[in-house]
Amino acid sequence: RMQKQILPYLKEMPIGNTVKGSVYKSKQKSHRRRWNIRPSEMSINTLNPIRAIVDGMKLTPNPEKAMIALSIGDPTVFGNLPTDEKVSQALKDAIDSHKYNGYAPSVGYQKSRDVVANFYSCPEAPLEAEDVVLTSGCSQAIDLAITVLCNPGDNILIPCPGFSLYKTLAVSLGIQVKLYNLLPEKSWEIDLQHMESLIDDRTTCLIINNPSNPCGSVYSKEHLKNVLSVASKNCIPILADEIYGDMVFPGCKYQSMASLSSDVPILACGGLAKRWLVPGWRMGWILIHDRNQIFGKEIHQGLVKLSQRILGACTIVQGAIESILNDTPQEFYYRTISFLKSNSEICFSELSTVPGLTPVLPAGAMYLMVGIEMEHFPEFQNDVQFTERLVTEQSVFCLPATAFEYPNYFRIVVTVPEEMMVEACARIREFCQRHYRPCSQDSNELDQ
Amino acid sequence: RMQKQILPYLKEMPIGNTVKGSVYKSKQKSHRRRWNIRPSEMSINTLNPIRAIVDGMKLTPNPEKAMIALSIGDPTVFGNLPTDEKVSQALKDAIDSHKYNGYAPSVGYQKSRDVVANFYSCPEAPLEAEDVVLTSGCSQAIDLAITVLCNPGDNILIPCPGFSLYKTLAVSLGIQVKLYNLLPEKSWEIDLQHMESLIDDRTTCLIINNPSNPCGSVYSKEHLKNVLSVASKNCIPILADEIYGDMVFPGCKYQSMASLSSDVPILACGGLAKRWLVPGWRMGWILIHDRNQIFGKEIHQGLVKLSQRILGACTIVQGAIESILNDTPQEFYYRTISFLKSNSEICFSELSTVPGLTPVLPAGAMYLMVGIEMEHFPEFQNDVQFTERLVTEQSVFCLPATAFEYPNYFRIVVTVPEEMMVEACARIREFCQRHYRPCSQDSNELDQ
Repeated sequence: RMQKQILPYLKEMPIGNTVKGSVYKSKQKSHRRRWNIRPSEMSINTLNPIRAIVDGMKLTPNPEKAMIALSIGDPTVFGNLPTDEKVSQALKDAIDSHKYNGYAPSVGYQKSRDVVANFYSCPEAPLEAEDVVLTSGCSQAIDLAITVLCNPGDNILIPCPGFSLYKTLAVSLGIQVKLYNLLPEKSWEIDLQHMESLIDDRTTCLIINNPSNPCGSVYSKEHLKNVLSVASKNCIPILADEIYGDMVFPGCKYQSMASLSSDVPILACGGLAKRWLVPGWRMGWILIHDRNQIFGKEIHQGLVKLSQRILGACTIVQGAIESILNDTPQEFYYRTISFLKSNSEICFSELSTVPGLTPVLPAGAMYLMVGIEMEHFPEFQNDVQFTERLVTEQSVFCLPATAFEYPNYFRIVVTVPEEMMVEACARIREFCQRHYRPCSQDSNELDQ
Repeated sequence: RMQKQILPYLKEMPIGNTVKGSVYKSKQKSHRRRWNIRPSEMSINTLNPIRAIVDGMKLTPNPEKAMIALSIGDPTVFGNLPTDEKVSQALKDAIDSHKYNGYAPSVGYQKSRDVVANFYSCPEAPLEAEDVVLTSGCSQAIDLAITVLCNPGDNILIPCPGFSLYKTLAVSLGIQVKLYNLLPEKSWEIDLQHMESLIDDRTTCLIINNPSNPCGSVYSKEHLKNVLSVASKNCIPILADEIYGDMVFPGCKYQSMASLSSDVPILACGGLAKRWLVPGWRMGWILIHDRNQIFGKEIHQGLVKLSQRILGACTIVQGAIESILNDTPQEFYYRTISFLKSNSEICFSELSTVPGLTPVLPAGAMYLMVGIEMEHFPEFQNDVQFTERLVTEQSVFCLPATAFEYPNYFRIVVTVPEEMMVEACARIREFCQRHYRPCSQDSNELDQ
């Protein structure tokens, strides 16, 4: 791989050795140093656990069964959840206006920020255009929020199980992550005591993801207030990843963190990706909630400065956002949510009766987590082997929750067409029935 | 700005003091630490010299003259340089196809990478889809390229005068910049000796911007080969910022760095922004040229990993890129270039006869640099004061080249409508005539 070197670059050469020194010195001028290009520490430390795990799996489907991927967190892949026609039309209108081809300010057009501010403003958490930074997708929103709040050596608290990007971004920036537990038996509420026990002097940010990927959980007002109390007591700002905001099933109420906070400063991250079903458009935002001027001008200015590194969202999408937020019919949102709820219920009720599995009923977002009672599946060491074999035998792929730092669970994406969901659940049942072993005391002893 | 604290957080309290200790300990539990949120070092170190300088200027135009801004490097602001109808149509077709709403791979759709590879491939520098990383604008391309090649403490060589983003990005990442001189008397060719003298053991990247912002210079094949020799001899990879690639005036030939290199590995950064006149669309790319496998798999992998932090370009634009690159009529490119050449010539010939100014004729891109013979303008201390007063008196704003680390020049953007350019030049002439002072020996002595 290396370019052949004619003469080694002798920087270690002793300076006292004059004869050799002068010989080499003249040669050194006319000859090459060695090519030695190494990727940076930051690129080496940018780790994507999902890729690392999935790429390490042998995913050879059963040739007799069509593949069903329940693994992809992209609601658009099967074509059953198109965005609304108004949303597409808004984009075309923005193109036709010829007004949105030039550079926008790095934080986004004033008008677009204003529209986002109005859409999310509420009496308890008022927003103005100045409180909004438009970004290239919610990923950049999270990136900027972490980057402005944390220095290398600081730490942030992230949910476990949780979306892998938080760790990917933080670790690449030299920021430590500490994982706080979610409690499956309490619909994935946060173990507040555990969370608080992790806080130390270098904790600069608490990430709360509600509704949650991968859990599909939606926190009650009361629980969110308890989370805010911990943040308030310990003076830790919150990064609220609310990309699934408002995506909650009928009967359940979504409450933004900011609407419940009287003092804790919050950077709320969101975007068009999930609710408007256009994740590829890369339109995200940060809503700066700073009721008591605790972030102050400096954090605001820090975000503005960071936004100037690569600028933000595509201007055509920025130009369309007014119409997207204001003209998309309510039925569109309702249809999406109804579908997700129905599919979740199908999946949950099917898998509830499968021996060895414990699905957790979601209340929003587009995911469902399923526990594997590993003691009943002695053939498999862990969730990775379990889901790998599920592909080999049944051509159904679910993401092992080891990708979310939560072994012995797997995540199901509930955006797939209903018939696919039904078929997948039937195959999962067949798979489990085949491999399930009752845990009698005898068999346990035999195993040991 | 700080939240009032009820009780100070007493981490410095001596542990030995049991009585006081226990009292405080119980109180500590129920009381707050202090809110103390500081923006990160990285956000503090993200400096935008253009903003810093422009925001510090008193830019109050003369109310009797309409403002003419020759300062904005955005070809779309005056509406005289619309993108081609085919380009807009390609975007609308991509929307209508409903195929480009979901996530693309973080490096871009395979098909789109393939199209970019084919468009820029040449026998001397062949490219395949795998050699292309699509990014959110050329800014992200430059960001990823610097980030993958450099660690904190390394240094990069950047042109002076030069586009300010290189320094902004590098410094925010803890990477040092060293400025190599361009020579205005040689049409802004690089002072190669100076450049080479800056190279040391921690030099990990040489940035070459051709055609250049702010100079509008286009390097000859021979000069580029000489640059490559320096890189080759010293084993330094090149980041070629070629966002203005192919934007050269008739009679002049643009040559990509990669087409001339037999060994030096090159990351060539480009995008749709300038040539297709849609900078807001944020569609950029890195072309990885690695003839001798010196970058090897690791740099390639490093770029892929970094691209996963925030994903890249808007999928709608990615979906349109095949048609944009392949179907845009040649006349569109030709019309843009002819206009830029004509406007450059008008500007150059007008300002050539203005006492005290020395414009440098550009050969491409969309800029023209003008030297100010400061000794003839004793009223002004520097280019910032000169251009500031030009606004006050003549309502013409040119960017002082201090923003490019090159004092006593200013930059003119030549994308403005012709009549505006003519009017602006006339006003600049009037301004200079009014403030010009001949430098007789006498007056010099009087000054001292």
